[in-house]
Amino acid sequence: MSLIRIAVLATGDELLNGSISDTNTRDIALLLGPAGYRLSTGRSVPDRPEQIVQALRQLIPHHDVIITTGGLGSTGDDLTAKTVAQALGRPLEENGKALEMIHKRYAEMGRELDPVVLRQALLPQKSVPLPNTEGTAPGFWLRQQGCDLFFLPGVPTEMRSMLKNAVIPALQRNKPGAAPMLTRSFGFFGLSEPQIESRIPYANLPQDVAVGFSLDYPLVRISLRAASDNAENLLDSAEALLVEQLGDYLVARGDETMAAHVGQLLRRAGINLSLAESCTGGLISQMLTSVAGASDFLALSAITYADSAKIDCLGVDPDIIVTYGAVSAECALAMAHGVRARSRTDLSLAVTGIAGPDGGTDEKPVGTVFLALAAENVDQVRCYQFKGERQKIQQMSSCMALEWLRRFAIESLN
Amino acid sequence: MSLIRIAVLATGDELLNGSISDTNTRDIALLLGPAGYRLSTGRSVPDRPEQIVQALRQLIPHHDVIITTGGLGSTGDDLTAKTVAQALGRPLEENGKALEMIHKRYAEMGRELDPVVLRQALLPQKSVPLPNTEGTAPGFWLRQQGCDLFFLPGVPTEMRSMLKNAVIPALQRNKPGAAPMLTRSFGFFGLSEPQIESRIPYANLPQDVAVGFSLDYPLVRISLRAASDNAENLLDSAEALLVEQLGDYLVARGDETMAAHVGQLLRRAGINLSLAESCTGGLISQMLTSVAGASDFLALSAITYADSAKIDCLGVDPDIIVTYGAVSAECALAMAHGVRARSRTDLSLAVTGIAGPDGGTDEKPVGTVFLALAAENVDQVRCYQFKGERQKIQQMSSCMALEWLRRFAIESLN
Repeated sequence: MSLIRIAVLATGDELLNGSISDTNTRDIALLLGPAGYRLSTGRSVPDRPEQIVQALRQLIPHHDVIITTGGLGSTGDDLTAKTVAQALGRPLEENGKALEMIHKRYAEMGRELDPVVLRQALLPQKSVPLPNTEGTAPGFWLRQQGCDLFFLPGVPTEMRSMLKNAVIPALQRNKPGAAPMLTRSFGFFGLSEPQIESRIPYANLPQDVAVGFSLDYPLVRISLRAASDNAENLLDSAEALLVEQLGDYLVARGDETMAAHVGQLLRRAGINLSLAESCTGGLISQMLTSVAGASDFLALSAITYADSAKIDCLGVDPDIIVTYGAVSAECALAMAHGVRARSRTDLSLAVTGIAGPDGGTDEKPVGTVFLALAAENVDQVRCYQFKGERQKIQQMSSCMALEWLRRFAIESLN
Repeated sequence: MSLIRIAVLATGDELLNGSISDTNTRDIALLLGPAGYRLSTGRSVPDRPEQIVQALRQLIPHHDVIITTGGLGSTGDDLTAKTVAQALGRPLEENGKALEMIHKRYAEMGRELDPVVLRQALLPQKSVPLPNTEGTAPGFWLRQQGCDLFFLPGVPTEMRSMLKNAVIPALQRNKPGAAPMLTRSFGFFGLSEPQIESRIPYANLPQDVAVGFSLDYPLVRISLRAASDNAENLLDSAEALLVEQLGDYLVARGDETMAAHVGQLLRRAGINLSLAESCTGGLISQMLTSVAGASDFLALSAITYADSAKIDCLGVDPDIIVTYGAVSAECALAMAHGVRARSRTDLSLAVTGIAGPDGGTDEKPVGTVFLALAAENVDQVRCYQFKGERQKIQQMSSCMALEWLRRFAIESLN
């Protein structure tokens, strides 16, 4: 169970001229981890033969595996195969299997084959072509000085599928990995990163479990990571300890969004919901409906941006707006009552506030947000002062609204 | 005007274990480009002294500048200064200016200084500290074998501000850059990437202008890039040619979103808008209101997810839903009329469809979406068949709705 040293070499001018960030390295790490492989290092170089060659020459002696992404198509800047052929002294030759893959792929897509794409079958001598189930250019694999070199497309969907279906199986046959690296992640809302860190029971966590933090504003995401044949059990006990300390703030598991989590709770509680949004402009509704099945609990959301809409559509008394303003506890409650009456739902929630950058006053600065919740025998309203720019205030307001819904659903379930 | 060779070295376990993608390299490229500097290569290594040292040793002889990110805080894995001190034989010493910066920063924040953070003032001998206007840990700069090494924080906001305020001015004094690299970007909607590519007048473009593509679903983004003292003029003529060929599909400039662009047009045209959304669940409203000033044109958006909401809130005739279904041209038009009547707006737009993954039938498969638009003497309705997963269908439907609004606003302005 020795550690396999793996490098990623991402090629492409776009990675260095500011066009895009490299996301392939992260995707490769995520796919290799559970199979027992970890990345030692990553590089990005432009589409220049001399830089690709230099990087490969530096990497080969110190790594067992090199995964290269990019430069596999049939256009001018797709020059990986040619460059590798020269660098390793293995002239390009037409690879019969690669040719077959290309023909098969075009037949599947029902598209006519442009002879230009047949160039994609020219691979360095003794290469093993790797099928591309998402695109047309095959990848390839060759071995040099004991190092396995895999050349994959740069397009993320093509790269991921080739890695999963061809590279990992090849690695597992040739260079078995160490223990799988398993990761579980959790999203928390309502505590800052330092507050969460201070509550993590580090002393009691199994020794081989590593804790990682990342910010997914306004959530704090924590990952628990273990590399061991016993990883599942280690993570089970670490998770139990984490939930014991922080379960009250846990609003998402894995890649789940907070809205998906809250939607599940509303569904389980059999709640029928309506929303009245003003400063969040539809964000709460959009979050809840980006997950399938929102129609099980969401009946109506009225985005009453204009005062006239609050009056006409929700029946807010114009006197309330004149006397207290549209951003007030009174208006928030009237909006909640109005949308509840109109939609005849169990529960309604309203948000009104000043997302900025304009519209703030001394008394009600940008970031002043009122939330109101109405249900049978329930009336709640509260004023918050959120900080930051418009989009942060909208996100924070929406997540706070989801948090109110989450707590209401949990109480209903208890 | 020789080319300065610049490497980025990103440090951090999180960059190689799948937690996050490195976005700092792109940000650095974007900030350096206009100042006349380009990146030659990028590397990522974990928080391990031996790997950081190895990378620096390999990079120093071949680069004029190395920008390192990460590892500057005061916790256990923040070990850049210590590692560099050992690698370059320059023992750590308390740097008076760095100490001053830290004290000043804490005073500004009004926070009490934990003695632990004073460790951040321990820098390799002969380092120049770089102020951190966003966080607490100063960066530092030192020169070794003619190479300028800058050590910046890994947190993107801190990194960017230090790069802008300290690194670029230092570079410009010490190693003047080449001609500035200027970039202009444009977002197109309604044509595929190959369709756009075939219309770009490559033959007529100024020779020194490079064209880049990126996908920002469902928009295709094109960047024009020129590195020359005459770059502004070159880009002006390239832009004119591009707009001549593709102007009809141009829906965003620079970092602008399509919604911001359409919002501007609606505002200029003095249109008062209401929306009725079903399958898009608030996404159109959220897009329009994520930009400040949407209250100038958006009065009301009714997200009528349930049939009962379509009937109660928009006054859709129940017979329409029974006879034609909620996903039908008839219902879309009735929704548009209903929301227009209720909000007394000039223009209204309605969307109803099947975003999936469930709810499709043979006759109306997932991706069937009806758009309807109503204004004085105008009634439009059309059925689309969009492909892909739920979120793609929602995005495509919302952008198509924005496209209808864009064309309506342009016609009103003409």
